[in-house]
Amino acid sequence: MSVKVIHWGLGAMGGGMAELIAKKSGIQSVGAIDLDPNKVGKPLGEIFEGQAMDVIIQREPEQVLSVDADLVLIATGSFTKEVFPQIKQAVESKKNVICIAEEMAYPEQQERELAKEIDRLAKEHNVTVLGTGINPGFVLDTLIIALTGVCTHVEKIEAARINDLSPFGPTVMKTQGVGTTVEEFKKGIEEGYIVGHVGFPESMGLIAKALGWELDEIKETKEPIISKTYRKTKYVEVYPGMVAGCKHIAYGIMDGKTVIKLEHPQQVLPELEGVETGDYINIYGTPNVNMAIKPEIPGGIGTIAMAVNSIINVIKAKPGLTNMAELPVPRAIMGDIEKMLKTRS
Amino acid sequence: MSVKVIHWGLGAMGGGMAELIAKKSGIQSVGAIDLDPNKVGKPLGEIFEGQAMDVIIQREPEQVLSVDADLVLIATGSFTKEVFPQIKQAVESKKNVICIAEEMAYPEQQERELAKEIDRLAKEHNVTVLGTGINPGFVLDTLIIALTGVCTHVEKIEAARINDLSPFGPTVMKTQGVGTTVEEFKKGIEEGYIVGHVGFPESMGLIAKALGWELDEIKETKEPIISKTYRKTKYVEVYPGMVAGCKHIAYGIMDGKTVIKLEHPQQVLPELEGVETGDYINIYGTPNVNMAIKPEIPGGIGTIAMAVNSIINVIKAKPGLTNMAELPVPRAIMGDIEKMLKTRS
Repeated sequence: MSVKVIHWGLGAMGGGMAELIAKKSGIQSVGAIDLDPNKVGKPLGEIFEGQAMDVIIQREPEQVLSVDADLVLIATGSFTKEVFPQIKQAVESKKNVICIAEEMAYPEQQERELAKEIDRLAKEHNVTVLGTGINPGFVLDTLIIALTGVCTHVEKIEAARINDLSPFGPTVMKTQGVGTTVEEFKKGIEEGYIVGHVGFPESMGLIAKALGWELDEIKETKEPIISKTYRKTKYVEVYPGMVAGCKHIAYGIMDGKTVIKLEHPQQVLPELEGVETGDYINIYGTPNVNMAIKPEIPGGIGTIAMAVNSIINVIKAKPGLTNMAELPVPRAIMGDIEKMLKTRS
Repeated sequence: MSVKVIHWGLGAMGGGMAELIAKKSGIQSVGAIDLDPNKVGKPLGEIFEGQAMDVIIQREPEQVLSVDADLVLIATGSFTKEVFPQIKQAVESKKNVICIAEEMAYPEQQERELAKEIDRLAKEHNVTVLGTGINPGFVLDTLIIALTGVCTHVEKIEAARINDLSPFGPTVMKTQGVGTTVEEFKKGIEEGYIVGHVGFPESMGLIAKALGWELDEIKETKEPIISKTYRKTKYVEVYPGMVAGCKHIAYGIMDGKTVIKLEHPQQVLPELEGVETGDYINIYGTPNVNMAIKPEIPGGIGTIAMAVNSIINVIKAKPGLTNMAELPVPRAIMGDIEKMLKTRS
């Protein structure tokens, strides 16, 4: 008996998960839900390489969720409020849930009541709900937490994820303000269509909870990255003096001091100004830990991997709302998933 | 009610744990066992900064273990066979155990029967047993496993821990062959008094189990690092042509290919020949992940931290023999341990 998965959301991330699952052993997709009229009614395998031809993508979740399955992968939105009704429906059909909504990495942080309700529902139906992804979910939280494990004392944490948005299309360009003037950028921030990174409060909350810190405040700043050079991608052109991206920084403050500083400047072609992309973690404490991953872990593949690789951990976890700091360390699932489930203590 | 700990073994590592626990909140040391005649009979606080004056270090474990406590920290030896009787006694007194014996990081690998027996005893007495440390326990296993979590596929893992043995004394110099001639080094390897690193098979076993790989074979090589320069520390002098340390490499082989290569060259003053100390992990897969921690995480502090920081995870874990890949990610415990225990789901 293979592990059975239902896909809810088949965009770039959800579709990537469907293709990844097709490559893994001991697991199969048994249902798929999406709103896209170009996908609805088609066999999953017609759109996603290696997938089942007998699983028809459906618009309405009811029938899909009535099928026997172990877990639903939800890849539909970024915010807990958006995905809550879907999580509720999946949980009530007695299925475990892995969701890549950024806020779901630690929904207690900004949606305490919804988090409580998810936990209650999951326990009632004897299933586990996890939010994960590359970030939040790994680079600026789980990995930081793991590295503090070697410290007898932690004074301050500073980490940065410096990436290149060049492969991304118009939507991402717009939400990060790439190619705007400085004035347009300010307006975009004020009006909320330039959003920067979603997930800083969740990463902060996860780290603080894990270490036993009680943060008094989380501050966020979003500044334009004003280009000194001409930068051009397939989707955007940035002239000197225009905005190449959004420098989003979050500060976790305790007793008047910044104890966590997380930085995620998102721009196109930072190398043109000598900025090396990478994931950087500096822990100031006993001992200091200075970690660099160069280039940065790619966000898309990373999120797809984190979601699918968490399947065994989630199925084995006790019922309720969980998070990456509560589960066993993530790991690439390279063996037969069904067999691995059986041999996990 | 604080969390109560008993120390078994008060050498550099066990003593460091005692001093660290004295600095933490919501936890206290309630017993101590050691063989050293200079320590036996003295109050723990007379030897270890900040520790209790009313806990007397004792030679015999029976009476110490009869005290009510949550956990025993065992820091007495490197091999499962050596520490097994101590683990057994601690478990039979109904206490959780954290042990830094290298082989205990994954005793299933080389001591399958003893591992089974530890698991059986722990379940019988409703406690948890963990082996941990900086390496094995973190750098060349847990951290590697965590980083593979972002990969949809892993082809091969190569990692190296390059350190400087300069601070260490005569015992370490001898077990790594520092300051010997090439002939003496070969003799030392043959006769077994030059040992290199203890723990490669355990790290390999942990990684393979976590990823679902079935290794066909683990090979180890130990070569002399022949110095090209004059290297001098407080404890040893190495002339050009003599041995500066032991280059110990382990290969995990599956289907005729090396899928895991772990390297731990241990020598004095590698910088004199342009070798930068650090912890390096390269995962070849989708995506590739190239991680560097420079300088390397110090071994002594790191081991002390990993042991003490694992206390909450171990107390919360289900009964039996566990390991770092089964527990939640490690993290620095910075808050009140008793309070943190209560708020952990």
